[in-house]
Amino acid sequence: MNEWKNNLRKIKPYVPGEQSKDSDIVKLNANENPYPPSPKAIEAIKSFDFNSLKKYPPSDAAQLKAAIAKHYGVGIENVFLGNGSDDVLALAFQAFFNGDKPIAYPDITYSFYPVWCEMFKIPYKTYPLGDDFRINPEDYREENGGVVIPNPNAPTSIGEDVDFIEKMLNFNRDSVVIIDEAYADFGVQSAALFVDSDKYNNLLVTGTFSKSRSLAGLRIGFALGCAELISVLEAVKNSYNSYTIDSLSIAAGTASVEDDEYFREVIDKIIKTRTRLTRELRELGFTVFDSSANFVFATHGEYKMKELFEYLKTKKVFIRYFNLPRIDNHIRITVGTDKETDILIREIKNYMGVNN
Amino acid sequence: MNEWKNNLRKIKPYVPGEQSKDSDIVKLNANENPYPPSPKAIEAIKSFDFNSLKKYPPSDAAQLKAAIAKHYGVGIENVFLGNGSDDVLALAFQAFFNGDKPIAYPDITYSFYPVWCEMFKIPYKTYPLGDDFRINPEDYREENGGVVIPNPNAPTSIGEDVDFIEKMLNFNRDSVVIIDEAYADFGVQSAALFVDSDKYNNLLVTGTFSKSRSLAGLRIGFALGCAELISVLEAVKNSYNSYTIDSLSIAAGTASVEDDEYFREVIDKIIKTRTRLTRELRELGFTVFDSSANFVFATHGEYKMKELFEYLKTKKVFIRYFNLPRIDNHIRITVGTDKETDILIREIKNYMGVNN
Repeated sequence: MNEWKNNLRKIKPYVPGEQSKDSDIVKLNANENPYPPSPKAIEAIKSFDFNSLKKYPPSDAAQLKAAIAKHYGVGIENVFLGNGSDDVLALAFQAFFNGDKPIAYPDITYSFYPVWCEMFKIPYKTYPLGDDFRINPEDYREENGGVVIPNPNAPTSIGEDVDFIEKMLNFNRDSVVIIDEAYADFGVQSAALFVDSDKYNNLLVTGTFSKSRSLAGLRIGFALGCAELISVLEAVKNSYNSYTIDSLSIAAGTASVEDDEYFREVIDKIIKTRTRLTRELRELGFTVFDSSANFVFATHGEYKMKELFEYLKTKKVFIRYFNLPRIDNHIRITVGTDKETDILIREIKNYMGVNN
Repeated sequence: MNEWKNNLRKIKPYVPGEQSKDSDIVKLNANENPYPPSPKAIEAIKSFDFNSLKKYPPSDAAQLKAAIAKHYGVGIENVFLGNGSDDVLALAFQAFFNGDKPIAYPDITYSFYPVWCEMFKIPYKTYPLGDDFRINPEDYREENGGVVIPNPNAPTSIGEDVDFIEKMLNFNRDSVVIIDEAYADFGVQSAALFVDSDKYNNLLVTGTFSKSRSLAGLRIGFALGCAELISVLEAVKNSYNSYTIDSLSIAAGTASVEDDEYFREVIDKIIKTRTRLTRELRELGFTVFDSSANFVFATHGEYKMKELFEYLKTKKVFIRYFNLPRIDNHIRITVGTDKETDILIREIKNYMGVNN
């Protein structure tokens, strides 16, 4: 009796970031967008035929795929959709990393990669970032079973250019190279320009509507790749769950992509605030990396970042601290509104005992 | 070069059921509910604070869990949520079926079970239904690595009582027993009554909002089990994707569960139409199983069901035909509205050359 316990999956639960129902919180810990979704996305929800929710969503979500394809200048057969980019990445790991050689990614990067490797029993090897916290493409010439590179990288916020991506692709013609572009809209050129070229059929680009499109609440992720890669991804997805994206997300997501003006406006505002936040932190003696994302990564020679993180929490300002090797005296701060930045900077000054 | 193709997952794509954008179609092929969702669920969407979609959904979805817990008389720690019950079942297969012994399920059942077994490399053994297409609990006394039983079974539509469930649980104290209740609201007592008992901690009950709650478009599935099973399921889910259910689904799902009156009204209407449909098909010479679901399963001694299925398609009436051993002269028909049933019966009579 109870022998069934032997067959349970033993896995260390991944603990998602802190959340709070307190609306007073200045929430700069989840890289959410401080601005609302496109009014056109909201209008698409409001004018939806709610009675039709009794039907399953179109399993191909062609409408949303077409909008994304147009935005990136690729074909609809080059687009895959999932329930947030975590879903897309988890499916891509299962679809493309079935070899015996370890897959390669940086030592400091998105903390879900090793979790998926454990979950799907994929061997992996990490390559240390340089002292400047940048990825050295030469490291990735070693034989591997796949490559995953976030651009910009997280939590470092550092973005790389198209030459870097092309090097990665050229060094790894025998592997699928995933470029995770969760934050790309805030400052790097998308690798999507290589997707429809016959030259790099080993490229998969992933993206999300949760950051630049202010739709974290609707769970929309996507991938771009050559038709063969996308069809394998579709087969794996359809062996898992046929209908991952719901009908309202398809409608709102499509309207969001079509509203390019609002999209660019929001990104411009965030970049402006990022510039200001970076400057003000540097004025206070912080080392702040040049960010290509909607967050900044910083440290300070004279203060313990863990303490600052905890102090700010008592002041209802939530930022992110990672108790991890090499970055255990760093903090990650989401770029919020200018008003949120005022509060953040004021509280940091209070902590440091600097006059406001 | 292109050696990456060796590492691709080789899997036969699962092809989801036929869909059509033609609004003329009488769509009785996906077991969708013919009635709209609860007006309260729709109101919950309309009155949602759409600006808050910029934030991630609460990853625990406590509000929806609490409503489901109350509905089934269990604790919130006994409830798990997923992106439709396919997502819940796929995660449960990964969480609970990690032994070497084959898991057990009927030969005629939900066609996704073998797909997940292949996907997650789980050995399985199927047990033939009796000649009456019923499951014999005695078959499941054989040692196994887990048991999956849909109640009612699909596509047979046949439901079993609580004694049957208790037998299954008693015969399999060393396995996790999953009772898949996608269609239970239409005619069987839920096994949820055993969930909070210390007696059967090996039970997982799964359910969906896609059928009885008319919310297929929003992708909400759930599972009920003892706190230990649920916590393993949460750990696996959090190793895959932290935020599976979106904010609008949480709001609409909660309102749906709280509107018990509408829920019972819709189910009553479907049961009435099911009774009528069963009677009229039998009057036309069909053998129709007594259904506990929102569909009927039927055959006819004098006609080829595949032909009838194809004929009806030309008349814009979509039903389901499975070209599978033992049931390749059967059809599955979703119970629609009375008006849809009028059209269906009229076209069947036309096919048979019976006067309308």
